[in-house]
Amino acid sequence: MKIALLFGANSFEHEISIVSSIALKKVLKDELIYIFCDYNRDFYLIPTDKINSKRFSSGEYKKDKKLELKKNGFFQKNLMGEKKLIFDVVLNVIHGKDGEDGTISALLDFFNINYIGPRVEASVISFNKLLTKLYAHEFGVKTLEYKTLQKNSKRDLVLDYPVIIKPTRLGSSIGISIVRDEKELDYALDVAFEFDSQVLIEPFVEGIKEYNLAGCKTDKYNFSIIEEPQKEEFLDFDKKYLDFSRTKRVNEATLGKELTQDLQDSFIKLYEPFFAGSIIRCDFFVLKDEVYINEINPVPGSMANYLFDDFNNIVEELVNYLPSKTKVPPLYRYINKIQSAKGK
Amino acid sequence: MKIALLFGANSFEHEISIVSSIALKKVLKDELIYIFCDYNRDFYLIPTDKINSKRFSSGEYKKDKKLELKKNGFFQKNLMGEKKLIFDVVLNVIHGKDGEDGTISALLDFFNINYIGPRVEASVISFNKLLTKLYAHEFGVKTLEYKTLQKNSKRDLVLDYPVIIKPTRLGSSIGISIVRDEKELDYALDVAFEFDSQVLIEPFVEGIKEYNLAGCKTDKYNFSIIEEPQKEEFLDFDKKYLDFSRTKRVNEATLGKELTQDLQDSFIKLYEPFFAGSIIRCDFFVLKDEVYINEINPVPGSMANYLFDDFNNIVEELVNYLPSKTKVPPLYRYINKIQSAKGK
Repeated sequence: MKIALLFGANSFEHEISIVSSIALKKVLKDELIYIFCDYNRDFYLIPTDKINSKRFSSGEYKKDKKLELKKNGFFQKNLMGEKKLIFDVVLNVIHGKDGEDGTISALLDFFNINYIGPRVEASVISFNKLLTKLYAHEFGVKTLEYKTLQKNSKRDLVLDYPVIIKPTRLGSSIGISIVRDEKELDYALDVAFEFDSQVLIEPFVEGIKEYNLAGCKTDKYNFSIIEEPQKEEFLDFDKKYLDFSRTKRVNEATLGKELTQDLQDSFIKLYEPFFAGSIIRCDFFVLKDEVYINEINPVPGSMANYLFDDFNNIVEELVNYLPSKTKVPPLYRYINKIQSAKGK
Repeated sequence: MKIALLFGANSFEHEISIVSSIALKKVLKDELIYIFCDYNRDFYLIPTDKINSKRFSSGEYKKDKKLELKKNGFFQKNLMGEKKLIFDVVLNVIHGKDGEDGTISALLDFFNINYIGPRVEASVISFNKLLTKLYAHEFGVKTLEYKTLQKNSKRDLVLDYPVIIKPTRLGSSIGISIVRDEKELDYALDVAFEFDSQVLIEPFVEGIKEYNLAGCKTDKYNFSIIEEPQKEEFLDFDKKYLDFSRTKRVNEATLGKELTQDLQDSFIKLYEPFFAGSIIRCDFFVLKDEVYINEINPVPGSMANYLFDDFNNIVEELVNYLPSKTKVPPLYRYINKIQSAKGK
């Protein structure tokens, strides 16, 4: 199978995406092509044998072949006109903006390109942490309580400290702060509002257990092992970075049968309505034996490959279970009816 | 001002979009260009003076100039290479799929094209009637109670008849039925599931009042008059079609000051968080003096021009208040840090 890794884009997590997609070279045994979307949203075909992070930071990639995204694929100009890049499926490895907010999904849908990744609705639901909460609640998965604040609203908040302040729409811990008392609040809000016009405020629960579970649905649900991520309070951006380059299988968390089942059940409730076609990682909290969803990552760091026994196989399987696209047949029933009524 | 009307697309409401955009020719005094997206998602530049519905139903449009959507605009091939189509703003007049589900918004965002229309998040929230309910509830606007059903789920529903069955994701009354007793239920569900994998079931409230209010935000909120749409039970598809060609100002509903204020307040609650840049029509129900949102139409039929005193002016104003796009600056902080730590 030939897989096109799509990575980069105009995202605060652009660099993470580079790290993620390079990590996948060690994991995927299929033939890989690397399609880089730069900060300016120009596409380049990066030679697989020459890929390394410096190629991007130095701007050297600009010497690589430029690609154009249009109907039915990515095209490379040549003397004879243009050549279509041949692959079986795109693997969306763009984290954050562009990749997880529905933009890339919409482009690939519109241009009729096969891809593994969240569809537009799933992207919007998981990218916006407020919508994630509403969605999870509707489908029977608990979330921590929260307040929201708009950038231009009055900051007259009565809070039980400590709290976590999060931009509503960003991933990878960017712009997130723990606030232990009111004095620190204003600064933390300013930081979060740098990245989004809306913030979410949640209680910071000391010692809450966190468990990550990845998976996807083919003819059945394919679950990864459950990991208890190592963290100091919560992962900061630098630590998350390291996380994104992971390719080694991690140790399984020691959980009872019941809790494992609860986590998997919650995963299914979240995945089933909208996430077909994607490999997602759900980051759960567990508090007093109750499962809460913290975040749904529909393009997790290095695709959460390190959580699976056979990641390569899962990717190859999933290609056969991508959601079918609704195609509306070209009919002009109404206009024809009017025309014939007019006797034209 | 030069406005590019974008219409058609792969949508069950493709024909409605044609009707809508032709209607706007009578209303907008600006210079107009017509960009048609056909069922196959190919773009064509339709001569403004030759536009009529038959051009599309007959396939005659295929002789018009083909356009390519890419970075920074729509381009027309010529002997010298290509020419960029010049306009100030796109007015998204694509109803339903592609236009209201976030797809076109994502394309225009990604390719850096100015447009009036809902952004991706706003589209997903309003296109999916279940998400609309969750969203409205979160921001303090009531909705009718509901149940949801998945296509492959067991149909063991206990319902208080009459009910309305709606596909979760379609507009313009397509696939909607009123069900008066259990015998009719299966057929109505089959019809709805033709169009979507999920349906929404709501109580059908005899004699409920319906009021439509359109508007947008510039430096202030610009409200249309409030219309009480004429209906037999609810508008069927043919009647809606007529609705889409409307260009004549309608009569204002006679409402008390308080109810008018309630409707406008509800409109603001719904518009404010996500709908900047669009002209939307909110279809409200009023039951026992309480306001409920039924539907948010972010690309309403003929842009709800017939509800405004000076629609042209509103469009021209709104162009100055389109949401600014977040641009992530090209930085390689993390990779540079790693590189320098490695001494490279």
